[in-house]
Amino acid sequence: METNQRVAVIGAGSWGTALALVLGDNGHDVNLWTHNKDQMALINDTNRNERYLPDTDLPASVKAYYELEKAIEGVSTIVFAVPSKAIREVAQNIEKVCKEPKVIVHVSKGIEPDSHLRISEILQQTLSEKTMKSMVVLSGPSHAEEVVKRHPTTVTAASDQLNASQFVQDLFMNQHFRVYTNSDVIGVEIGGALKNIIALAAGISDGLGYGDNAKAALITRGLAEIARLGTTLGANPLTFSGLTGVGDLIVTCTSVHSRNWRAGNMLGKGKNLDEVLETMGMVVEGVRTTKAAYQLARKHKVSMPIVQALHCILFDDVDPKEAVDQLMSRMKTHEMEGLVDILGEQIRN
Amino acid sequence: METNQRVAVIGAGSWGTALALVLGDNGHDVNLWTHNKDQMALINDTNRNERYLPDTDLPASVKAYYELEKAIEGVSTIVFAVPSKAIREVAQNIEKVCKEPKVIVHVSKGIEPDSHLRISEILQQTLSEKTMKSMVVLSGPSHAEEVVKRHPTTVTAASDQLNASQFVQDLFMNQHFRVYTNSDVIGVEIGGALKNIIALAAGISDGLGYGDNAKAALITRGLAEIARLGTTLGANPLTFSGLTGVGDLIVTCTSVHSRNWRAGNMLGKGKNLDEVLETMGMVVEGVRTTKAAYQLARKHKVSMPIVQALHCILFDDVDPKEAVDQLMSRMKTHEMEGLVDILGEQIRN
Repeated sequence: METNQRVAVIGAGSWGTALALVLGDNGHDVNLWTHNKDQMALINDTNRNERYLPDTDLPASVKAYYELEKAIEGVSTIVFAVPSKAIREVAQNIEKVCKEPKVIVHVSKGIEPDSHLRISEILQQTLSEKTMKSMVVLSGPSHAEEVVKRHPTTVTAASDQLNASQFVQDLFMNQHFRVYTNSDVIGVEIGGALKNIIALAAGISDGLGYGDNAKAALITRGLAEIARLGTTLGANPLTFSGLTGVGDLIVTCTSVHSRNWRAGNMLGKGKNLDEVLETMGMVVEGVRTTKAAYQLARKHKVSMPIVQALHCILFDDVDPKEAVDQLMSRMKTHEMEGLVDILGEQIRN
Repeated sequence: METNQRVAVIGAGSWGTALALVLGDNGHDVNLWTHNKDQMALINDTNRNERYLPDTDLPASVKAYYELEKAIEGVSTIVFAVPSKAIREVAQNIEKVCKEPKVIVHVSKGIEPDSHLRISEILQQTLSEKTMKSMVVLSGPSHAEEVVKRHPTTVTAASDQLNASQFVQDLFMNQHFRVYTNSDVIGVEIGGALKNIIALAAGISDGLGYGDNAKAALITRGLAEIARLGTTLGANPLTFSGLTGVGDLIVTCTSVHSRNWRAGNMLGKGKNLDEVLETMGMVVEGVRTTKAAYQLARKHKVSMPIVQALHCILFDDVDPKEAVDQLMSRMKTHEMEGLVDILGEQIRN
């Protein structure tokens, strides 16, 4: 690829802004789109996005835009960095104004309720060939705050087209920000979405005053559940042992900064879902994803006891302590039972 | 099995004492052996092991012993809960005084330097048929302090004899302490021993001021290295996705109470190995294990870049920042490369 690219990053939250900084560091020109006109002006005046990433100077090649059409004009690549619930609407708007096919990258994590679509499936439904040349998911254990400090970070670029994932790898890769390619889009997206459920469960366990032993059990058995559902949906089971599986799960479940962990923690301390959502004042992705995963597990007849227990706590007002204690005592007695299913699946394929 | 058993727990540190409490809770009679006569008297006088587990009343059925022969007299089961470097000597002493075959359980984590033997191999070398009926490893993510609070904990009982692992499962299992059986002794022992190396690496990364992103990368790639070596030695790769693999790894790498993490942290902050060991004033298991794993990796031609980097830091005075930065930039570019090796191995077997 040419050394200098023009890239649009759609969404100026903390993660979109951090990715704009990485791209700027690599010598690319970045159009950072925000739906908020004041935020655009502030970013361009101060060269910072103070609200989301305090004390961080952005490279001079990052410019903020308010009009979608101008933001994507002449770019080779469009990076979707909006919350998962906004993906469909923003994609529809881009489809209207895009004049030539782009490499599409998305960094969102979630499953659409009711439709059960992954983010890449929503984009494929919404964007036509005249807009989308190829599609790549970028995911992995990555707090934005650490990326902008140029601390070591590793992520995965997944696409069913190897040249597309390699293009995105080249675009983002530098000394601090390492990008690995992977061909398993389903596994990367399922791991990214479902880790938020396990973070909720880990938060509940901590909120109940249980310790590291209980949390480690939940994370381990939770990873097996995610792999079980993912494999049924067509993922490669090995993806769940990688950066977007166990890597991202660890960061989300052990960081007190995780929104899902914090919501779970409040549930464990006795608040109900409505109170928690009111206190948080923002979307808790794991709540939406629990509903979707619960429906998917039933549909595909996959055993997911942690998801089921969480569904009872969130939507049927079951007491968290009772649900977690029952979960612990109902787990299988031979460790390999659930895992052998996965490998069996893999060997058959 | 009969409901009431007599069990000897050899070693009255925090983990041995916690296991004695679990057995006592389950209605068994426990002989808790310590090499320290004063400690024996104190435990029997106060019904507590104050030095290792403050404020914890032991069940009345736990009695401390100082003489090895008396401690194992009439028991069905001997649980080895001594540090890995003491295993060989204690086993030799038991071999001398044991009069009838026992179920042998061990809960130690490590690999013997130079001989590269796992704990169960040392025991098999040392104990004859007149002493050992069968052998079971008990391992998993379990802080003793949480077990004695009766907080939920899950561990694995591994043996190549299913009836032995089920006997040990029945012995320890209760509402709070869940035991799963597994037939993969090699995988359980390798996972338990090598996690301490990754905890050292995670501590170094934290000591350098790097964040969760770097630590998640080290844990994820570290797990792949452990699985690679373990599989070469005959382990089932799935074991590394279970409680004694990823589960125990998470607890050890994210707890500031971990001795190995603390040693790594000091190394990251600029101290050299001698200074660290002097400050710690006790064995840092991960240092011994790094040497053994490094030798094993060379012998079996297994790629273990994290172990290699740690070996350079510990024994060749390489600067930790340089080693970690180089490690990050040398990692493979396709996520599956190392993992596919493992699955390939599994499918061939």
